[in-house]
Amino acid sequence: MPGVMFDTVAVLGLGLIGGSFALEVQQKKLVNRVIGYDSSKAHCESAEQLGLADQAFTEWNDHLSQASLVVIAVPVRAVVSVMETLHPWLSSETIVTDVGSVKGPIVQLMKERYHRLCFVGGHPIAGAETFGPQSARMGLFDGKNFILTPTTNTNLKALEKIKQLWSAIGSTVHEMSANQHDLIFGKVSHLPHLLAYATVEAIGEGDSPEILGFFGAGLKDFSRIAASSPEMWADIFLENQANLLNSLQDFSQILDEMRKAICEEDRTTLVKLLSRSKQLRDEWISSRV
Amino acid sequence: MPGVMFDTVAVLGLGLIGGSFALEVQQKKLVNRVIGYDSSKAHCESAEQLGLADQAFTEWNDHLSQASLVVIAVPVRAVVSVMETLHPWLSSETIVTDVGSVKGPIVQLMKERYHRLCFVGGHPIAGAETFGPQSARMGLFDGKNFILTPTTNTNLKALEKIKQLWSAIGSTVHEMSANQHDLIFGKVSHLPHLLAYATVEAIGEGDSPEILGFFGAGLKDFSRIAASSPEMWADIFLENQANLLNSLQDFSQILDEMRKAICEEDRTTLVKLLSRSKQLRDEWISSRV
Repeated sequence: MPGVMFDTVAVLGLGLIGGSFALEVQQKKLVNRVIGYDSSKAHCESAEQLGLADQAFTEWNDHLSQASLVVIAVPVRAVVSVMETLHPWLSSETIVTDVGSVKGPIVQLMKERYHRLCFVGGHPIAGAETFGPQSARMGLFDGKNFILTPTTNTNLKALEKIKQLWSAIGSTVHEMSANQHDLIFGKVSHLPHLLAYATVEAIGEGDSPEILGFFGAGLKDFSRIAASSPEMWADIFLENQANLLNSLQDFSQILDEMRKAICEEDRTTLVKLLSRSKQLRDEWISSRV
Repeated sequence: MPGVMFDTVAVLGLGLIGGSFALEVQQKKLVNRVIGYDSSKAHCESAEQLGLADQAFTEWNDHLSQASLVVIAVPVRAVVSVMETLHPWLSSETIVTDVGSVKGPIVQLMKERYHRLCFVGGHPIAGAETFGPQSARMGLFDGKNFILTPTTNTNLKALEKIKQLWSAIGSTVHEMSANQHDLIFGKVSHLPHLLAYATVEAIGEGDSPEILGFFGAGLKDFSRIAASSPEMWADIFLENQANLLNSLQDFSQILDEMRKAICEEDRTTLVKLLSRSKQLRDEWISSRV
């Protein structure tokens, strides 16, 4: 165990990710003190009761200037307005990091407007369909991937500390550019989430709802992701618009080839198309990260 | 435990489903003897070695006429040709059942050409991406749904016996018409499987295969189903063509509305569309079969 890495950490946004992060760093004794901030008074009260933070506030205050680490865990679309009021409270010594699912816009924002701050972009590949402080729990990041998206301007000491912090929490840390991150996650996460929402609606429309009970085991998790926060996912889809629309176009083209083969009862083509997917999937499994 | 329900059972097709069924009825002592048939000599040898069947053959033979239960567990597209050569071996006393994922065509076939036989259509809602006799295992059907699709011509005693058999194996048995079954499973199983194949291909095309390693937990099972047998799924898609194409059209329409909202950065519409899915999914969960 690396011991105490930061004296005071400020967690902005006390939802599933921010709250679980706060729990981990306290219980693993990686920090001395957690100060929480959330625009919802109810969230602040829950966070204090649940022990996610020593104190939690709805407005920025002097405690912020005592934080040596600030973790932005607000919804991705709120980051621009949060930074506008937050930045005067922070010194250039404070390490600022985030947990957003889309990295390009925040990395760009910090580079253009807040380059005096010591920022390192991050994304824990973990989640659940639950939200709010009540959903925070230990172990959420355990054995999961964590992506850091440094730029040529990133302070290397800060990068190293954030890397060590998430490793100590139990995640496997990877580094890549923000653009590479958004391209990959547009494909492996944002596209399938969009498809899950559309599938559940296509299945449910005009039917008695009990038919979902017949979902096979392999599809239960797929339907589960359509129960995630619609606001959060709308924001992710909009923030990663270009990559998502590109992946969606590739998907629609392939799906249309399959549809045509089914329509024309062309079994040879259909088997060829499905076999290509199986082969790709088998290759992926054998080269698992 | 109901004790021995059938003396000799013949299992046609010694793959994952046929093989696992054979294991269950033997180990639970629901039958005295299992005779297996499979067009592959290697499958027959494995089945005997693995104890799935007392004896296994590549050609129909006199053992068939001793079976009081015949279970057709061949790929759905092979049923027509199997029945053509099989039916002279069977008496009108023998109960014939199947495990196919599409029920309309076989129920129709049995009604039109083989109405002298005592047929009950069935479908265990269980599976895996593995296949062949080696993949057979105990517990595959445990706690899973099993759908029976009787018609007005179905022998009620035979229906009752098949129901008791699958209950004894550990499944929860439901009854519905073949058309209702194919409509529901076109939506909750065949459509999502088709989408999984298309998604995996859309993600994998032109990329280094390691990016699937970043698939989140909720999507691992979704990608897993794209590793199922392409031939088997091509046949299921083609057998349930009309229902699948209808569901696909509903899906494409909804996906296109979502795409448009993302394209036009219309957050209000996007949140509304995603919320509708979440609501449907939440209703389903609370009315789970």
